[in-house]
Amino acid sequence: MTAGSLTVIGLGPGDAAQITPEATAAIAAATDFYGYAPYLDRLSLRPDQRTHASDNREEIDRSRAALEAAAGGAQVAVVSGGDPGVFAMAAAVCEAIEAGPESWRRIDVRTVPGITAMLAVAARVGAPLGHDFCAISLSDNLKPWETVARRLKAAADAGFVIALYNPISRARPWQLGKAFEMLREVLPGDTPVVFGRAAFRPDERIGVTALAAADPAGADMATCIIVGSSETRIVERPDRAPLVYSPRRAMGGRR
Amino acid sequence: MTAGSLTVIGLGPGDAAQITPEATAAIAAATDFYGYAPYLDRLSLRPDQRTHASDNREEIDRSRAALEAAAGGAQVAVVSGGDPGVFAMAAAVCEAIEAGPESWRRIDVRTVPGITAMLAVAARVGAPLGHDFCAISLSDNLKPWETVARRLKAAADAGFVIALYNPISRARPWQLGKAFEMLREVLPGDTPVVFGRAAFRPDERIGVTALAAADPAGADMATCIIVGSSETRIVERPDRAPLVYSPRRAMGGRR
Repeated sequence: MTAGSLTVIGLGPGDAAQITPEATAAIAAATDFYGYAPYLDRLSLRPDQRTHASDNREEIDRSRAALEAAAGGAQVAVVSGGDPGVFAMAAAVCEAIEAGPESWRRIDVRTVPGITAMLAVAARVGAPLGHDFCAISLSDNLKPWETVARRLKAAADAGFVIALYNPISRARPWQLGKAFEMLREVLPGDTPVVFGRAAFRPDERIGVTALAAADPAGADMATCIIVGSSETRIVERPDRAPLVYSPRRAMGGRR
Repeated sequence: MTAGSLTVIGLGPGDAAQITPEATAAIAAATDFYGYAPYLDRLSLRPDQRTHASDNREEIDRSRAALEAAAGGAQVAVVSGGDPGVFAMAAAVCEAIEAGPESWRRIDVRTVPGITAMLAVAARVGAPLGHDFCAISLSDNLKPWETVARRLKAAADAGFVIALYNPISRARPWQLGKAFEMLREVLPGDTPVVFGRAAFRPDERIGVTALAAADPAGADMATCIIVGSSETRIVERPDRAPLVYSPRRAMGGRR
């Protein structure tokens, strides 16, 4: 039997021009593709390549199925949007390996990095992540809301720019509003907030507002939000969208 | 006169297979290239394309020169390693635009994102950034050390995984050791620490150690360090390097 392998592949923000040649080669080398259906739909596969679509919240079952196929000799690809290491499939695959049979630890597992959403959104507006920043998933499916709340406060207090992933969904309608509320207690009302939806995709929608006016209704599941620090600046431009950036020279948060 | 343009381009970690087609196209379209010499050296340019190399710490002068060339009608590329929005040229260009003549605000400025170092290092070892994380530049050239120290403590206390950029240089020899010392006061001694040097390049060197044993001598200017949270795990594997990952399910830092 041929030795199987498992490659976790990041497809980037969604524009084909942002898929790295490394990812393209890894896609060509795989026989079996596991992933959330909308990500699998992005691939142009050959007739001999098989897809195994699964639903959004089934990361662990998907990882197990992929590892089983690799253990059976398949060349497996697990695909993620953005970067697979950021709130995506790479951690789920590691968890499944740790909890799974000893033989899974012998599988050739590799990760192909991709451009994660906050980098794409930042590129669209200037350089809001130009200084120290953090990334927080607003989902409380896998952690208590108190943990999210404590991290938001700590990050804002310490002067980090904050990228919010998984800001809102039908099942989690109030978390983003609550997050803005908490951040308004720490940060000035004119702190820039970037709503970056589907950056670099045909349905892209990028908006810049002030924290005081930030409205959760402007976000959906495809949105990554960047909340500036008190040092993040907006540069108005005639006939062009404003630039949003965080200076490299920083004093550092609330004092 | 043709209208000039300025594109800030991310070249990724350094493997040509990680340069996006978008970046390749942007490189082909530019006439004048500004950047730190080692990044310019990565490019294979045509005879009609000109390079303007500058030293590492001259980001603002480089930005001004690039903007002047664009204002004069050139198709300018400013190149960065990794992603230009993360401790790199995009913020410097925005700063120069804000401080510069009104006419610079009319220039067509665009950013092409790339894979930033922490994503590349993470991909090499598993998924250490699998949950909430932050990125901190250890350089105190542009911010007081007290700000760095406060952010390190806040991030560790709140359970963020921490990626350290610019950890050490000849001019800044003690900061990384001091950072490890501070983190040891907050995090368990067995917290995984990843030293990722030149990920995906021929001279790559990746090491995993425990915080208690982390030695600043293992890092240089080309190293990105990832310090886990108290929940980050190591999965030992026979005949393979261990996997390091942060579970998606998290309780959240020190309690």
